Amino acid sequence: MPSYTAPLKDYQFVLHDVLRVSEQDIPGYADLDRDFTAAVLEEVGKLSSNVLQPLNAVGDTEGCRLENGVVRTPTGFKAAFDQVRDGGWTALDAAEQYGGQGLPYVMHTAANEPMVSANMAFNMYQGLTHGAYSAILAHGTQAQKDMFLPKLASCEWTGTMNLTEPHCGTDLGLMRTKAVPQDDGSYKVTGQKIFISAGDHDMAENIIHLVLAKIPGGPEGIKGVSLFIVPKFIVKDDGSLGDRNGVTVGKIEEKMGIHGNSTCVMNYDEATGYLIGEAHKGMRAMFVMMNEARLGVGLQGYAQSVAAYQNAVDYANDRLQGRAVTGAQNPDGPADPLIVHPDIRRTLMDQKSFNEGARAFTFWGASLIDRAHKTGDAAAEGLVSLMTPVIKGFLTDKGFEYAVAAQQVYGGHGYIEEWGMSQFARDARIAMIYEGANGVQALDLVGRKLAVDGGKHLMGFFEMIKGFIKENEGNAALKSDFLDPLKAASKDMQAAAMYFMGSMKNPNNALSGSYDFMHLMGHVCLGYMWARSAAAAVQALEDGASDTAFYETKLATGRYYMARQLPATSLHLARINTGAQPVMALEAASF
Amino acid sequence: MPSYTAPLKDYQFVLHDVLRVSEQDIPGYADLDRDFTAAVLEEVGKLSSNVLQPLNAVGDTEGCRLENGVVRTPTGFKAAFDQVRDGGWTALDAAEQYGGQGLPYVMHTAANEPMVSANMAFNMYQGLTHGAYSAILAHGTQAQKDMFLPKLASCEWTGTMNLTEPHCGTDLGLMRTKAVPQDDGSYKVTGQKIFISAGDHDMAENIIHLVLAKIPGGPEGIKGVSLFIVPKFIVKDDGSLGDRNGVTVGKIEEKMGIHGNSTCVMNYDEATGYLIGEAHKGMRAMFVMMNEARLGVGLQGYAQSVAAYQNAVDYANDRLQGRAVTGAQNPDGPADPLIVHPDIRRTLMDQKSFNEGARAFTFWGASLIDRAHKTGDAAAEGLVSLMTPVIKGFLTDKGFEYAVAAQQVYGGHGYIEEWGMSQFARDARIAMIYEGANGVQALDLVGRKLAVDGGKHLMGFFEMIKGFIKENEGNAALKSDFLDPLKAASKDMQAAAMYFMGSMKNPNNALSGSYDFMHLMGHVCLGYMWARSAAAAVQALEDGASDTAFYETKLATGRYYMARQLPATSLHLARINTGAQPVMALEAASF
Repeated sequence: MPSYTAPLKDYQFVLHDVLRVSEQDIPGYADLDRDFTAAVLEEVGKLSSNVLQPLNAVGDTEGCRLENGVVRTPTGFKAAFDQVRDGGWTALDAAEQYGGQGLPYVMHTAANEPMVSANMAFNMYQGLTHGAYSAILAHGTQAQKDMFLPKLASCEWTGTMNLTEPHCGTDLGLMRTKAVPQDDGSYKVTGQKIFISAGDHDMAENIIHLVLAKIPGGPEGIKGVSLFIVPKFIVKDDGSLGDRNGVTVGKIEEKMGIHGNSTCVMNYDEATGYLIGEAHKGMRAMFVMMNEARLGVGLQGYAQSVAAYQNAVDYANDRLQGRAVTGAQNPDGPADPLIVHPDIRRTLMDQKSFNEGARAFTFWGASLIDRAHKTGDAAAEGLVSLMTPVIKGFLTDKGFEYAVAAQQVYGGHGYIEEWGMSQFARDARIAMIYEGANGVQALDLVGRKLAVDGGKHLMGFFEMIKGFIKENEGNAALKSDFLDPLKAASKDMQAAAMYFMGSMKNPNNALSGSYDFMHLMGHVCLGYMWARSAAAAVQALEDGASDTAFYETKLATGRYYMARQLPATSLHLARINTGAQPVMALEAASF
Repeated sequence: MPSYTAPLKDYQFVLHDVLRVSEQDIPGYADLDRDFTAAVLEEVGKLSSNVLQPLNAVGDTEGCRLENGVVRTPTGFKAAFDQVRDGGWTALDAAEQYGGQGLPYVMHTAANEPMVSANMAFNMYQGLTHGAYSAILAHGTQAQKDMFLPKLASCEWTGTMNLTEPHCGTDLGLMRTKAVPQDDGSYKVTGQKIFISAGDHDMAENIIHLVLAKIPGGPEGIKGVSLFIVPKFIVKDDGSLGDRNGVTVGKIEEKMGIHGNSTCVMNYDEATGYLIGEAHKGMRAMFVMMNEARLGVGLQGYAQSVAAYQNAVDYANDRLQGRAVTGAQNPDGPADPLIVHPDIRRTLMDQKSFNEGARAFTFWGASLIDRAHKTGDAAAEGLVSLMTPVIKGFLTDKGFEYAVAAQQVYGGHGYIEEWGMSQFARDARIAMIYEGANGVQALDLVGRKLAVDGGKHLMGFFEMIKGFIKENEGNAALKSDFLDPLKAASKDMQAAAMYFMGSMKNPNNALSGSYDFMHLMGHVCLGYMWARSAAAAVQALEDGASDTAFYETKLATGRYYMARQLPATSLHLARINTGAQPVMALEAASF
């Protein structure tokens, strides 16, 4: 069975050596010193290894059951959820006035990683609740906030997001769920929603569904969508629970993975709902949460790769098979461990260099969200909005790819469920799909984000990279291994952006290259994070850091990424430059 | 639920336009005229669509059950197996003297594709039997052949391959299963074998296990391994079935996919076995079948991608979501079909161009096997031995990748088992692992095959490509779209081979690039097949072929592959050129 240990040293490295959080001029960051973050992350690491990880296989095997209209979660989930709740882990970045600890989002992100690595399906119950909390915080009335936020922050109640309907996912303008205004200011919500994660369960007293629906007579399409709070049990004015609302579980979907999470068909039948934010502005309310939600999904992608990688390393060290081509490494044993073989090294280095780069990228993204939210910095907001589809799309594609690669290290045992490696791949697979399928992320990136504010955010990112290279040019330890490849990759990014700008007349030219651009930019972002990580490691070694092995390993891992992964940008550029012609050549009937 | 239709036109195109089978000077090929192959493949296509495909989901959902020591296959499998058997589909290329139809292996391969696309798990029962048939044919005594081959050809009895043990898979020298000689010339076989596909089931009277084991006192390691026939029921001299042999099913493994096939732990307890071939030469006997077996697994890889692709195309045409960026294509409907979107086109073109290239490559490989076996052509044998790890490794990696891509077209529905797209991905996953994990294929290619006969087979492949380019250079329809990219890609292959030759002193330099070389060569092979396909299509159009749309589509699909996939060779070369240093930089403890 798999195990999991939170990579605490690397969390600290990213937060303090790379991002230097406590030196950043963002409210709340001054408190994030090394000892504080170490203490917090060590605690959540223990909880993840000892409580959540052992339930990962249980959740996968048992799944959720619908019994007499109520969803039963797998054995042990309820007690574990109590522990998570009691430890305050659900409310790390919730406002203190609603019972949270008021920490920055970057700390929520760092603390989230081990919980997601240990048990992705379980962690979704609180993840969705965090989303509902954020939506009500941003758009609710004060009365709504007072009624719902303390319970959501603590996860005494959990939350859900209801967007998709059987005939529409990405194109929410086609939505049919209706919300009819009532005399008392509430609405009656009727319709069917599908793919509702954590849609029902037995771990909380109440469930607060956030539901997108159309108020009859409103604008057509996406402009007529509003957002509603629909509690499972009506909440009385004194905060106590009243009647069961008109929302029921149609069924639990049988999925490829994340079996521990109850993905429900939800039927709303004149359920009482309360408008949140303005009528017909429901999408705007959803978009506010989108950067955070998509960053959270990107994290799911790489976090599964992290957990799978740890087990692949253990297996590669334990399993004796064949001999090193350069001579036996374990001459007293019947064979050498797998890890002596270059191709096993290759795949482990692929996984390791991705995982650490992805972590740095995600934590950096979280710090940009903090900067944007807490200081109103428009450049940070623009930059993280540009990065969001890359974090989501690139990290989930690669996270799945490397979870599969880790499974491959196990040979035949990787295919047997008992060994647990299949679950990492099956669970990671969903992250490429939900919260906007990755093709939609690419469309968002190239069709929308690149052009925002006249393209100045991508330009800002170029300049940031150029500035970094210039600043470090004299550093021989960085020059040829890190700065030169980064410069080449960022030039590819620039060339692709130029190509897109030149193809305004035929938008298909740009959109045919959107997926490649998402990956190209993903590599540039990870290359940039690796260059920054290398600079931080060199600095730490110069400063006489005691743990030299950690920093040397960091540098070697970074060199691998720059030498063997970053050159992918030129392939993506070559594809982008072919434009729409090869992509759109066929009639639909010719496929 | 998914559907499946055999791509009959493309089978005919590859066999007749590209490979021109009936003109090849290989015994039996003259009979393979267009009408004959069309008739055979149409029949097996119907069987696949109507009988096998509907059982694909049944097999996945029900799986196999072990009841009182006997394996029960999923509902409907037994009746379908009877139909396959009665139609003579198990014996297409078996020798006529053993009840087969004596057709070339290329016909077996072509007929196999639709059965594997329709139901991979089901088809494995006969696939393994085909392997056992081939092993006994190549190495058995005449008495063994007479006793077993007719029953295996007809699949009245089925076969299995028993190699892996709990502690050894790739490294079979570590094997512990023992075969102790008896006075009557038979052996008593004792040990445990795992991952035995089709290990037991209720669809045949008898099961003929081929088991690798060590005769005590023989040479150490892999050189002391022998191959045995161990029937489930002892076969009496008159051919009737006698006592149950000492072989039992320990359990059925719970796997990620191919649930319809019973993957068993097999326990041998003094089971009666009969040596096949020479003592201690068991691996040689296995290797004889390896090209065919690995080609068959490569076919499984792309065949899953083919089936998944067909359903992705249907979904992309049916599902209405969003509007084409260049203006509504379905103005009377609520939205346009997915297929209008460039990124959907991109992924469908990726899938289609891979599938068709992979088919041509595989059929070509099968024709090389025929040439080698039926004419003793050493060049053909050398070439197909070189290609075998590429067919197996590249086509299964890409087949899985594109099955996942097809699943992605379905958005959230792709993750729901009911829609059937998850199964294609889960089933395809095993093909990357079994019959030698793909890392082992890469090792076989770079560590062994490249150097065979002084490297002359790779050189022969270069020359073949060069010759083709030269021959067609004057053809403007091919020059820039096909020949130039093929030349560039084959130069990358040559450069990589040169790098490997230059790194004899440090074999880790070559082995660190082995996986990339397998993919590099895979792209060159598909690029070559696309160039040949394009030449054939141009010729057909010049010859006034009536189905111009088919040939035009073929050319457009080929152009896509050459423009957007083939350039991957330069990325692989860049990685190969980094050598072992980045790959082997870390201590094992630093992962």
